Amino acid sequence: MTFKLTILGSSSALPTSSRFPAAHVLNVHERFFLIDCGEGTQMQIRNCKIGFGKINHIFISHLHGDHYFGLMGLISTLGLLGRKVPLHIYAHKDLQTIIMQHLRIMFQRGEKLGYRLAFHHLTYEKPAVIFEDSKLTVTSFPMVHRIPACGFLFKEKEYMRNIIKPKIQFYNVPLQELHGIKQGADFVTEEGKTIPNKELTLAPYKQRSYAYCSDTAYHEPNAEVVKGVDLLFHEATFLDDLSAQATKTKHSTAKQAAKIAQLAKAKKLLLGHFSSRYPDFTLFRKEAQTIFKNTSAVREGDEYEVELTREENKL
Amino acid sequence: MTFKLTILGSSSALPTSSRFPAAHVLNVHERFFLIDCGEGTQMQIRNCKIGFGKINHIFISHLHGDHYFGLMGLISTLGLLGRKVPLHIYAHKDLQTIIMQHLRIMFQRGEKLGYRLAFHHLTYEKPAVIFEDSKLTVTSFPMVHRIPACGFLFKEKEYMRNIIKPKIQFYNVPLQELHGIKQGADFVTEEGKTIPNKELTLAPYKQRSYAYCSDTAYHEPNAEVVKGVDLLFHEATFLDDLSAQATKTKHSTAKQAAKIAQLAKAKKLLLGHFSSRYPDFTLFRKEAQTIFKNTSAVREGDEYEVELTREENKL
Repeated sequence: MTFKLTILGSSSALPTSSRFPAAHVLNVHERFFLIDCGEGTQMQIRNCKIGFGKINHIFISHLHGDHYFGLMGLISTLGLLGRKVPLHIYAHKDLQTIIMQHLRIMFQRGEKLGYRLAFHHLTYEKPAVIFEDSKLTVTSFPMVHRIPACGFLFKEKEYMRNIIKPKIQFYNVPLQELHGIKQGADFVTEEGKTIPNKELTLAPYKQRSYAYCSDTAYHEPNAEVVKGVDLLFHEATFLDDLSAQATKTKHSTAKQAAKIAQLAKAKKLLLGHFSSRYPDFTLFRKEAQTIFKNTSAVREGDEYEVELTREENKL
Repeated sequence: MTFKLTILGSSSALPTSSRFPAAHVLNVHERFFLIDCGEGTQMQIRNCKIGFGKINHIFISHLHGDHYFGLMGLISTLGLLGRKVPLHIYAHKDLQTIIMQHLRIMFQRGEKLGYRLAFHHLTYEKPAVIFEDSKLTVTSFPMVHRIPACGFLFKEKEYMRNIIKPKIQFYNVPLQELHGIKQGADFVTEEGKTIPNKELTLAPYKQRSYAYCSDTAYHEPNAEVVKGVDLLFHEATFLDDLSAQATKTKHSTAKQAAKIAQLAKAKKLLLGHFSSRYPDFTLFRKEAQTIFKNTSAVREGDEYEVELTREENKL
């Protein structure tokens, strides 16, 4: 039951010789969610040994090229690899227009894609649940940027309590009682004896979560949306020395990212989207750590795993 | 007076972890011509330390993604770097439609590009001169592929003979005579004595040339167009064991590329556009060398320079 983030690209608009533009992959229980898809993402997916076939959902924060110019290449490669199942793309509606233009010209030449693209148009006014299944919820929430942009919060659904099998067998608990017990119910035996839930179950696993905030100016309401998140990725295009530039271009500084992490009581802060003007990226971490200790400046290939741990037993 | 080819990408449709899709840069007298622009080309331009500002002409062979998916990223980066002068793009007219769709959506959001894109639409029926200046001619010529595709021949213009300065001074040759002498005329002194041109000049430099044939099935007329070329790049997607696959997909094998080089009497053959199914790319060179000795299988970062040498002195 993995919950692991892999960084495919850490740069901002101008890629450097060693840094790729924005792209993250989140592995939740061996399903892979791609967040942003800058140029070169498909090479990075290969470099990081992530199976192309495992990616079914792609989330594009906004339509600046460094966040989506790798998408057509990836779509095309998935087709060449024989994909048959739909690919879900969550993005501004204009991205559909752009991609369909590429595909129309491809189709006119008799080429085929072989699978369906399912577009889901983002909204930008308030947080919205855009994906949900039995394990996970993905919520988009507005960034403050020069063009419409969304952050994304990936959060596991609440876990139920885990039954202790030997105890269940010992008390001969019937199958139909198990669901209630997993939700915290006590068990009453045929003899009328009450077995407290605590004896039958372990505390549930904690819900794990990851939030992606990029691109955005410093915006305190973001902290509220991502409250208590395990991994907070927040863009830090600039250092504090260029905070005026950050304000002007609606980006953040490392210090501002750290303030959001502090307000959100995040467990760990990840910084990225660095401007290529800075030769030393450790400065981003150092600046943020004056406010928020548990900070890393991300690099291509980095993996950040959130371990499965149990809630305190409140019963 | 450089004439040097740099390989930015050597792969075919599916990039590998170490190979990028198609892109070459030809440096002719410190002007840089980009040929094809697969995904990641802008990173490779940076890796190969080529100045972005030196690229003014981009030639796109055909509209399969591995030959143009890097173009929007490059166009965008040139804008961010403050480009003001026009960028010339030689390609199928549909590429203009695709790029303008990207740009329209960018412009709607109030973003600007800062420089002009000049589109030149290719034709696919017969060879055509598509660029010409005082030093160089670029000719497009039809490939045989699944969709309209062009090869490109870059050829220096004929050099004039080089005057031997001390001799010119010795015979007091007037300025207005120099042009004729550079073209081979003898000089008659005031005393009526004829000085043979051979005494006044050195033989001219040889015209240097480079041809790009990708993507194409084996097509003998190509050899005629690129006759005597110094550097012949010819795609070799497959080895001879998959020649049926090459025929079907309208690609070439290493052996077929070598036959074209042999027919064309090329000085050197460069192979690329390798299918990612082959783990050992030296096999391409070895197969071609059974027919054409002076063959290399290209790699990212390779440079192939054609030295400046003089014609034989025919006077």
